[in-house]
Amino acid sequence: MLPVHLDRTRGVPLGAQLSAAVRDLVAGGTLPRGQRLPSTRALARDLGVSRSVTEQAYEQLVAEGWLETRHGAGTYVAADPARVPEPGPRPRVASSRPLVRLDTGTPWIDPRQSAAWRRAWREVSTATPPRGYDDPAGLPELREALAAHLARTRGLQLDPEEVAVTAGTTDGLRLLLAALPPGPVLVEDPGYRAAAATARQLGRPVLDHPARTAPDDLSGVRAAYVTPAHQHPLGRVMPAAERVALLDAARRADALVVEDDYDSEFRYDVAPVPALASLDRERVAYLGTTSKSVAPALRLGWMVLPAELHDRVQRQRRLTHDAAGWPAQRALLSLLRDGYLDKVVRAARRVYAERSVRVAAALGPFGTPAGPLAGMYSSWLMPQADAVRARDAARDAGFEVNLLSAYCRSAELTGLVVGFGGVTDAELDAALAALVRGLEGRGPVSPGSAGRRPPAPAAPRR
Amino acid sequence: MLPVHLDRTRGVPLGAQLSAAVRDLVAGGTLPRGQRLPSTRALARDLGVSRSVTEQAYEQLVAEGWLETRHGAGTYVAADPARVPEPGPRPRVASSRPLVRLDTGTPWIDPRQSAAWRRAWREVSTATPPRGYDDPAGLPELREALAAHLARTRGLQLDPEEVAVTAGTTDGLRLLLAALPPGPVLVEDPGYRAAAATARQLGRPVLDHPARTAPDDLSGVRAAYVTPAHQHPLGRVMPAAERVALLDAARRADALVVEDDYDSEFRYDVAPVPALASLDRERVAYLGTTSKSVAPALRLGWMVLPAELHDRVQRQRRLTHDAAGWPAQRALLSLLRDGYLDKVVRAARRVYAERSVRVAAALGPFGTPAGPLAGMYSSWLMPQADAVRARDAARDAGFEVNLLSAYCRSAELTGLVVGFGGVTDAELDAALAALVRGLEGRGPVSPGSAGRRPPAPAAPRR
Repeated sequence: MLPVHLDRTRGVPLGAQLSAAVRDLVAGGTLPRGQRLPSTRALARDLGVSRSVTEQAYEQLVAEGWLETRHGAGTYVAADPARVPEPGPRPRVASSRPLVRLDTGTPWIDPRQSAAWRRAWREVSTATPPRGYDDPAGLPELREALAAHLARTRGLQLDPEEVAVTAGTTDGLRLLLAALPPGPVLVEDPGYRAAAATARQLGRPVLDHPARTAPDDLSGVRAAYVTPAHQHPLGRVMPAAERVALLDAARRADALVVEDDYDSEFRYDVAPVPALASLDRERVAYLGTTSKSVAPALRLGWMVLPAELHDRVQRQRRLTHDAAGWPAQRALLSLLRDGYLDKVVRAARRVYAERSVRVAAALGPFGTPAGPLAGMYSSWLMPQADAVRARDAARDAGFEVNLLSAYCRSAELTGLVVGFGGVTDAELDAALAALVRGLEGRGPVSPGSAGRRPPAPAAPRR
Repeated sequence: MLPVHLDRTRGVPLGAQLSAAVRDLVAGGTLPRGQRLPSTRALARDLGVSRSVTEQAYEQLVAEGWLETRHGAGTYVAADPARVPEPGPRPRVASSRPLVRLDTGTPWIDPRQSAAWRRAWREVSTATPPRGYDDPAGLPELREALAAHLARTRGLQLDPEEVAVTAGTTDGLRLLLAALPPGPVLVEDPGYRAAAATARQLGRPVLDHPARTAPDDLSGVRAAYVTPAHQHPLGRVMPAAERVALLDAARRADALVVEDDYDSEFRYDVAPVPALASLDRERVAYLGTTSKSVAPALRLGWMVLPAELHDRVQRQRRLTHDAAGWPAQRALLSLLRDGYLDKVVRAARRVYAERSVRVAAALGPFGTPAGPLAGMYSSWLMPQADAVRARDAARDAGFEVNLLSAYCRSAELTGLVVGFGGVTDAELDAALAALVRGLEGRGPVSPGSAGRRPPAPAAPRR
């Protein structure tokens, strides 16, 4: 008789209990390979259960490969324990104290708007989700609302059919790169790390372009990824002349310009610069995101692609069911109708303007700002040794601040990138105090030597 | 003076009105290239607005590339209309009458469970979303709940750390294939079209494997995509001996087996066959989905990968912010805690069992079922001409039913694939009546000739 105990008071069906028990006996070596098992009839009698219970358990274990049925000769242990590794828990990663991240991507969201957020999800709770797989380009009403939003805020005159909803900027970048013929992708350097990683993930070579100028020769390049409204992470705004030259270069080389318009709404000084895509819809792929105006954790964005590319991407998405989730789309529709995005952006702009001044006051004596005051982070050029000391001091105080060099691939700019969106005022003050302590460890750098290092020569293009 | 009218009663700022008006004049050809514009001072006087309004508008249009400033000489029209194509609405796709789809992927959801669905999203509305980008592998509580769910329902003994949340099965497949070294992917034929499309999208050759046997030689293959619990779309269950042989072949060839466990919960006759992954965790990548038990439009699933691959995939996801959205994860956590999945699956199983019998009664005289009664669709082998006639008759009646040949790449099986999850009972009856009408157009096929065609010889492997 098998050493098995079945418990009728547990909610687990007897057949499942039995198969689990036998599985353990085999895995544990109690029942060795080749061992003959009692017949289902005999075991049922032994255990006082119906024969269907034992049959079901054996069938299950045969399907799992633990047991095998030899025709007319009964049931045997089939598993070779050496071939069936014990799953067992894997060692957990040693957990370190969680740091408060001063990153470039976490926004400040006006808590006074939380009622609209709650309303949006309550609307989701009562709306009827679509039966099956829907149009991968997104909900028609949402595409309409986004077209209106983009016309109003970004100068893009669109038919709603031209807008496609994505699961965020890098999702959009992935989808469009996957639909382009082979060829390298030019990415600003320093630049958005997720963009370079996405291109590489798709097997495309990444060409580094110095971020302080717009590329004017795209020959041999399939696509150029740029952040013209607010270069990530330097903060530079691409001037009109460079924009026109970039589009000219793209036309000459038959390359696509990918415009990542990730945080253009957060200018404090002037109206947001219109989207590059408003200049040439057939040459520019436009990417937008809710990560800065709603929450990164929503994983939702949009893209506006040249007509033929749009069609190709949506055909592919239909094949692979590659769509943004319906609930998030439905919630964003509510938020747009409520004017939530506008209100959150307006409130955040005031907060950022104020915080950016505090960052500048703290770091100004030690470095040079890499761009104008805008967005939810600012980048400071300073010698690497200073930046590292400041970063370490912040880490000791419980804050994670990124080095500018972490955004560089072949560029050699050094300094700090300080996000101030995703923290409280008190946290920002504490983090700035720690950074300053670190920078003062050597005393403030003299004005002559502080600030920018000469940029490295442009990386060879291939 | 420019022919511009500003309307102070509109909500639009005067500067924005002015730049829009000038943009239209340039785009429409009224202001030709090279035309000099009035100075900001003169225009402000003409229009009766402050000079900051005209300055702002010009600045905007310079940034957009419509105007250019010649140093010391004023502002000129820069745009060459030939180079700035009019956006203009694109022609809409001609809309056809929407068909009720009898597809393989749309489930029946017990309407009595809608209270739990509403509760889940109300919980989302009051929960606090994470500040920034979270662990791309998913919410810790959800991974814990999924590990328990998989242990209970699929025989997978897991540490929660081993589970990763995805945006659905093809998202998981994409992520894991992107992390594997180059090499072809073997896909069952006929098989899940999204799987083959996903592999190709990642630039991997797809090798066709006849779906009626398990592959036992994987040499030269990087990964083998299989649906062992319920072959898609034939419905076959992979026998234990073939499972063991498949894993042996994978070990010999150092290939990965990708197990798409898309609808294993929907067996009506026996307990679900345990996951192939329960036999060998280091050789099998396991993919699951909420598409069949919650809604395809949720775009949420999970994967359990071999340890080293899991780590590689999550590292890459962290780089590209490739995570499932927080709200959907939070809602699924509520649904799991509520026992929603179990209840929905239990109710659907009864409905499917009943419907599958009706499908069999209607189509039995005309074809041979390709697999056992299970899941939310059934596939019927019959001559292509019959299947096409039936499909056309259904289409005339407003229903979309797929041909089995549409799932074949090099295989030559013919027949119908009839989904019965996403329709009402009345719709199913109407669709079946139409299919039978189509099949009877030639009169029922005699038992001898009906049913299966001999399967095509196995496709050459490369």
